[in-house]
Amino acid sequence: MASSLEVLNHLLGHPPPAPTPIAYNFLVPNLKGLDNFLQASSSTGKGAGDAAPITSPEDPNAYPSPPPSPKSEEGGEEPAPITSTQDPNEMPSDTSGVNDPVQPAKRSAVTNSMEISLFTAATEAFSEANTNCSIAESLERCKPIVSKAKSRAIRVRGYVSVALGCPYEGPDVSPSKVAEITATLLEMGVDEVSVADTTGMGTAPKTQELLKALFGAGISAHDLALHFHDTYGQALVNVVVGLEHGIRTFDSSVGGLGGCPYSKGATGNVATEDLLHCLHSLGAKTGVDVEKMAEIGGWISKELGRENDSRAGKAVLPRLSS
Amino acid sequence: MASSLEVLNHLLGHPPPAPTPIAYNFLVPNLKGLDNFLQASSSTGKGAGDAAPITSPEDPNAYPSPPPSPKSEEGGEEPAPITSTQDPNEMPSDTSGVNDPVQPAKRSAVTNSMEISLFTAATEAFSEANTNCSIAESLERCKPIVSKAKSRAIRVRGYVSVALGCPYEGPDVSPSKVAEITATLLEMGVDEVSVADTTGMGTAPKTQELLKALFGAGISAHDLALHFHDTYGQALVNVVVGLEHGIRTFDSSVGGLGGCPYSKGATGNVATEDLLHCLHSLGAKTGVDVEKMAEIGGWISKELGRENDSRAGKAVLPRLSS
Repeated sequence: MASSLEVLNHLLGHPPPAPTPIAYNFLVPNLKGLDNFLQASSSTGKGAGDAAPITSPEDPNAYPSPPPSPKSEEGGEEPAPITSTQDPNEMPSDTSGVNDPVQPAKRSAVTNSMEISLFTAATEAFSEANTNCSIAESLERCKPIVSKAKSRAIRVRGYVSVALGCPYEGPDVSPSKVAEITATLLEMGVDEVSVADTTGMGTAPKTQELLKALFGAGISAHDLALHFHDTYGQALVNVVVGLEHGIRTFDSSVGGLGGCPYSKGATGNVATEDLLHCLHSLGAKTGVDVEKMAEIGGWISKELGRENDSRAGKAVLPRLSS
Repeated sequence: MASSLEVLNHLLGHPPPAPTPIAYNFLVPNLKGLDNFLQASSSTGKGAGDAAPITSPEDPNAYPSPPPSPKSEEGGEEPAPITSTQDPNEMPSDTSGVNDPVQPAKRSAVTNSMEISLFTAATEAFSEANTNCSIAESLERCKPIVSKAKSRAIRVRGYVSVALGCPYEGPDVSPSKVAEITATLLEMGVDEVSVADTTGMGTAPKTQELLKALFGAGISAHDLALHFHDTYGQALVNVVVGLEHGIRTFDSSVGGLGGCPYSKGATGNVATEDLLHCLHSLGAKTGVDVEKMAEIGGWISKELGRENDSRAGKAVLPRLSS
């Protein structure tokens, strides 16, 4: 399996065409990880904020080919680039799950970016298992990473794992503890904190209680993202609670890919296709084509030899092939 | 595969132990079906409203054995029978999906019942495909069935298929047409109408619009049930909309079993395990044990050689076996 750095190099070498900017997000577990990231991105001669090829492709077939991009319709309407907006029905452009890498290329209008992400957890037991240190130590380790990233103008995303249930400490995670950790990350200079329901134990009332604790700690909805796993099938219900409370950034993964090695039985993030179907039904404009996303979900699930875990994807795919 | 009548005879011959009443629901497509049902149930010497063995079991192994019932705890608290209630957090006892057939037997306290169900549809194209007649003809055919059933004091449940999207006529089904059909069924004497999202095309706003049309036609929430398929992953979001509008009866199927031969790609009803997880998280009392339901879902999925389509079920099962 390719390392994060190899994936980064491949993406920089073969940027997929996209009509709207894509923010490539790289997990940086420690300062060394950040240095590797900076080394790779600096060799482009650009700042790390701009994604561009760093080397000529030596082997364009090293990675499996994604499904073919749809033909650009002659004279068709050009998709408007997603931009930052105050419209509560507009989704932000930096949500990893709601950018579509297979739309027709309109390269000239697009400036992709790179950002890093770092992790901490809401419970001591998970922090020890996942990062081999206490929560306090984990936050201390984040400080120099954030500081160095910010000095290079790199956007930083923080994650607070097991915010709605822990495989070791159970479903009752302290919302005020999550709020405290989130506030600490934001004070450190992190641009956005994704509060993560790693185990899928989140429910509508628990999500509401957590958001109230976060807002009560003075944290703005604009500085938050929500990250739901659909382990118990409650992810979209929780997303709707988030929407009702002003959250506009939601993590997802195509085909419901993912899981967590430290959370037994945990399935992937909510599927991007299902999330899009829900958001679009509510009138949100994401700029993403569900059918194209379903094609990607079908393709990558097959490549990885795993079940396509998106209900909407599985419902849409037979229609596309018929 | 066993006919409905064989299934009926088996259930009457081998009533599963249950702590709370179970309403056995039988699909009656026409008057002949009702006559068969009446013949089977009348041979018990009881009214059709009471479920009891009609014959001695000739082959107790004719059906696969369900998972073993849990041991009754000595001196343990006896589960309270589910009764009809005005508490909006209480689920009614006649929701087919939320009765648990493998709880320890407390037969003396339990009077099971039988009810019939009949179908019509919200679109002409689906009615023709599913029942080979127009909606009006389908309603005419229902009349004598309802009349005869009511004369025998048998509870009747009506279904309005494709109420939130039709495989032939598309996603935009007229809410006022659904309301008109529902009102006609209720006026006929049907006890409850389950408004069915057969295709899973239902969304939160569409569900809300449909309920408003139903209430606007003078139909009470107490006369309605909602029936969601989770084809696009939106079923629980729609259930929450139903709850917010006072609906307290939701159809579901263990392991997400089901589908529709006339609706290509349609997957099963929302899984009972996922529905229970959602309802319990919201404080509803269903009287059903999610873990026991997950065991049944795992068992029946295996027996049928199909994927267990309940996320909560799949999340709970590894924990039970460890």
